[in-house]
Amino acid sequence: MAESRSWFCETLWDGSSTMHNVCITADDLGAISAVVPNTAARPGDTVLRGIVMPGFANAHSHAFHRALRGRTQGHGGDFWSWRDHMYSVAAVLDPELYQRLAAAVYREMLLCGYTSVGEFNYLHHDPAGVAYASPAMEEAILNAATESGIRLTLLDTCYLRGGFDSELTPNQLRFSDGSVEKWAARVELLRQQQSSSSKIGVAAHSIRALDASEIAEIALIAEEWNCVRHVHASEIVDEVHAAVDHVGRTPIELLADTGFLADNATIVHGTHPMGHDIDLVGWAGATVCVCRTTERDLGDGVTPAHSYVEAGAHLSIGSDSHAVIDPFEETRAIELDQRPMVNKRGLHDPAQLMHDATLNGLRSLGWASDGLVVGSPADFIAVDVDNHRVGGQRDLASVAFAAVASDVHHVVVGGENRVSNRQLVGGLNGPVDVGSDIASVIAEIWKRVG
Amino acid sequence: MAESRSWFCETLWDGSSTMHNVCITADDLGAISAVVPNTAARPGDTVLRGIVMPGFANAHSHAFHRALRGRTQGHGGDFWSWRDHMYSVAAVLDPELYQRLAAAVYREMLLCGYTSVGEFNYLHHDPAGVAYASPAMEEAILNAATESGIRLTLLDTCYLRGGFDSELTPNQLRFSDGSVEKWAARVELLRQQQSSSSKIGVAAHSIRALDASEIAEIALIAEEWNCVRHVHASEIVDEVHAAVDHVGRTPIELLADTGFLADNATIVHGTHPMGHDIDLVGWAGATVCVCRTTERDLGDGVTPAHSYVEAGAHLSIGSDSHAVIDPFEETRAIELDQRPMVNKRGLHDPAQLMHDATLNGLRSLGWASDGLVVGSPADFIAVDVDNHRVGGQRDLASVAFAAVASDVHHVVVGGENRVSNRQLVGGLNGPVDVGSDIASVIAEIWKRVG
Repeated sequence: MAESRSWFCETLWDGSSTMHNVCITADDLGAISAVVPNTAARPGDTVLRGIVMPGFANAHSHAFHRALRGRTQGHGGDFWSWRDHMYSVAAVLDPELYQRLAAAVYREMLLCGYTSVGEFNYLHHDPAGVAYASPAMEEAILNAATESGIRLTLLDTCYLRGGFDSELTPNQLRFSDGSVEKWAARVELLRQQQSSSSKIGVAAHSIRALDASEIAEIALIAEEWNCVRHVHASEIVDEVHAAVDHVGRTPIELLADTGFLADNATIVHGTHPMGHDIDLVGWAGATVCVCRTTERDLGDGVTPAHSYVEAGAHLSIGSDSHAVIDPFEETRAIELDQRPMVNKRGLHDPAQLMHDATLNGLRSLGWASDGLVVGSPADFIAVDVDNHRVGGQRDLASVAFAAVASDVHHVVVGGENRVSNRQLVGGLNGPVDVGSDIASVIAEIWKRVG
Repeated sequence: MAESRSWFCETLWDGSSTMHNVCITADDLGAISAVVPNTAARPGDTVLRGIVMPGFANAHSHAFHRALRGRTQGHGGDFWSWRDHMYSVAAVLDPELYQRLAAAVYREMLLCGYTSVGEFNYLHHDPAGVAYASPAMEEAILNAATESGIRLTLLDTCYLRGGFDSELTPNQLRFSDGSVEKWAARVELLRQQQSSSSKIGVAAHSIRALDASEIAEIALIAEEWNCVRHVHASEIVDEVHAAVDHVGRTPIELLADTGFLADNATIVHGTHPMGHDIDLVGWAGATVCVCRTTERDLGDGVTPAHSYVEAGAHLSIGSDSHAVIDPFEETRAIELDQRPMVNKRGLHDPAQLMHDATLNGLRSLGWASDGLVVGSPADFIAVDVDNHRVGGQRDLASVAFAAVASDVHHVVVGGENRVSNRQLVGGLNGPVDVGSDIASVIAEIWKRVG
C-alpha cells in the first residue's frame, strides 16, 4: 500500500526537539528506521512542507455520537436530554451500519490529524440485548479501523446496570454482558484478533454502571492481560454527589479503593474532583483524558488539568462525542478554559500540551512510543503553517494556538500515507469522499430513528 | 472590478428565511437589486454551492493586536501583562506599517467570512504623541479597508487618561488628543472622507480612559453626528471594582448616567455586569458585542449574553485581538461558554445568533440592512456544507455549530466578489497571498520591537 517509505521534512518536531531538513524513513513493520536532520531531499522522498510532528491520539471516542453533531443545539435541554438523543441513535445501529459510521468518522479523524483512536465501546449486543453469534459490533469497529487506516485501541467496556439503584433501561440492554465474567470471556475472544495496528484495552463504563467489586474484578483482569484501562469519572457534578450519597466516596476515591487507579489507567473527564481526588490521580501517575470540545458542548464545566499535572498526573485528549473533531482546538482548550478559573494565562507549556495530546495519548492507549525516533511507530502528520492563520510561525505555541484541523495536509500511520494534500489516499476500497460518506450514513441512521 | 453582478445560490438564508435555487443580483451602487427563488442559473451567473448567507460583521477589531497571535501563550501572565506586549507593538507602528498590517488582517477577515469590520482605533498620533500633519493613522485604516475591499466603520476612539487617578504612560501618549474638543475636530476631518464602503463612528475607550463629563460630551457629539457609539465596558472584574471605588458606579451605570447608553450604542464585552447593569443595557435597546475568542484567550470570563437578550439588548460579535479569526467559532462560543454557568444547553436560537452575528453587527456599525433583500447591501458569503464537518446539513444550527472559517468559499462585499474558491480575487494591487503577507508584516513589526 505504501507509496513512499521516506519523507523529507522542512521542520520536524519529534515530540521533544525541533530539527530542520530531516529525512525520516519507515521499515516494513511500520516503525521509524532512520531520522536524519540537516540533509537534503533524495529522489523518491515525499516532501512535507510546514511542521511535521507526531500524530494526535484521540484517546476517547464514541464513534456513533458523531450522528448528533448539529442536531441537539437549538432546543434547550441538558446532559441528560442530550443522552436521550444519543440513546435513540444507539438503538438503531446494527453491525453493518455501525461499521459504516465508524469508518467514516475514523476517516474524518485522519483528515484532521488524529493517527490513533481509543474507541470506548459499549454497544455489544443486538438492540434487544441478545448476543450476536460472534462479537459483531466489536468486529465492526476493528474492521472500520482497518478500512480507514487509523491505529485503534478498542476499549471494550463493561456496563452492567442503569445506575446506583436502577436496572438497565430497555435502551441500555445492549450494553450489558450480564456479568464481569461474561464480559471478560467475550473480550478474551477479541484479544486474539489484535494486530500490528489494533489492540484491545478494557474500560469500566463508570461507577454508575458497575459496583465496587465489579470494578475491582476488571482491574485484576486488566492487570492479568497487561492492558490499559479506561473509565469515565467525575464528568458532571450530579454524578459526584450521587456517588458520595450511594457509596460514601467520590468516583475517583472508589477507583483508587478498588485498585483501578494505576499508571496505565485513564480517567476520562475528571472535571469535578473533590477532596483528595486530584492527589489520588497524581499519586497513581494516571492519565486524565480531557475532552474539552464535548465537555464544552454539554456544559459539563472545566477540568482543572493544571492541578492534575502539578499532582503528578498526565494528560491526553479525546474528541469523545465528536461535536468537533479538531485536535488543535481540543488541545488548546485545555489551557484556554482554565484561564478564567485561575485568572492566569500560560498555565501549561505549549510543547508539553502537544506532547500530551500526541505521545501521552498514544501511551495511554497501550502503544509504546518515544516520539519520532528510531523504533517508534511511524505515526506523524504534516501541518501547513504558511497560511493566514499561523502566519509562517513554526514554534509549538503558534501551532497549538493558531492552527486548525484543516491545516493538516499529510498523515502517515504505521509508515503508510493515509492523507496526502488534504485528501484521503484511500483505504482498502479506494478513495472516499469523506463528506458525502458521512452525510449518507448519518442520513440513514436518522431515517431509522424516524 | 466586478466579475459578476449576479449569483445563483443553491440555498440562500436571507437573515430570516431559507430559499432554494435563488438568483440574486446587485446594482452598480452595491445594493441588492433582485432576489428570485425557485429559478434556474442563467449564463453569466456565478454559481454558489452550499449555503449563501449575509456576511459576518466583525463589530470589534483592533487590527494591530493580530501581531500577538501565538506569541503570548507560553509564559504565564494575565490581562495586564498581555497588555504590556500589546503596547510594545503599538509603539512601533507608523502609518505605513499600520496600513500594511491592517490590510493583511482585513484580507484574512474576508477569507474567513467577515464582510464588514468596526475598527476601534486609538492609535492616533506619532509614538511621542505628536499629531501627524494629516490624520495619518486613521487614513491608514481607511486605505487598508479600500485596498482589501472590506466594508469599514472606523470607530474613532477618544482616550484621554491612563486610569482613574493616573496620567497617560509614555506608551499611551499617542492615544490622546488632549481633549474631547480636539478629538472631535480631528474626527470631523475624517467624516468628510466617508464613502459608500466606509463610515466614521465614535468610541469612548472606557471609563478608565475618560471621565463622566467627557463621556457625556462624546454622547452629545455622536447624537449630533447621528453616528454609532461604541465603548469597552466591564471586561474584567478589576475594572468594575475600580469603577465602584472611584466613581461610585459600575461602568454600565456610568454610561447610562452620562447618556451614552442608547439604541445605537454598543457595549463591548459586558462580561461582568453587576446590580441593574443588564437591565440598563436592555432598557436602552443597546447592543452587547461579545468577543468570545479574545475573552477566552485573555481569561476574562464569560458574558451572560442570554440574560442581556432577555432584558431587551441585542448581540453582535467581534474578533477583537484576533487571537482567532473565525466568525462561526465566535458565534457559537457565545452559547457554548454560557452552558456550564446555567447548566443548560440551547439557550439561544441558532438562527437568532446567526442574525446577531451578521445583520445586527452590521446595524451596530451604522449600516442599514434588512438582510439579503432588495435595497440592502450586497454583502454575503457562501459556506461549503458538503464536507466532513457539516456533513451536508443546511440548517442554521448545523452551520453555526459545525462550520469553520475555512468552509467559506466565496465572499461578496457591496456587490463585488472579494473571495472566490477560497482565494482573494485581489484588491487594488491584484491578488495577494494572505499568509505570506501577514508573515512578512508581522516579522517586520517584531524586528522593530526588538
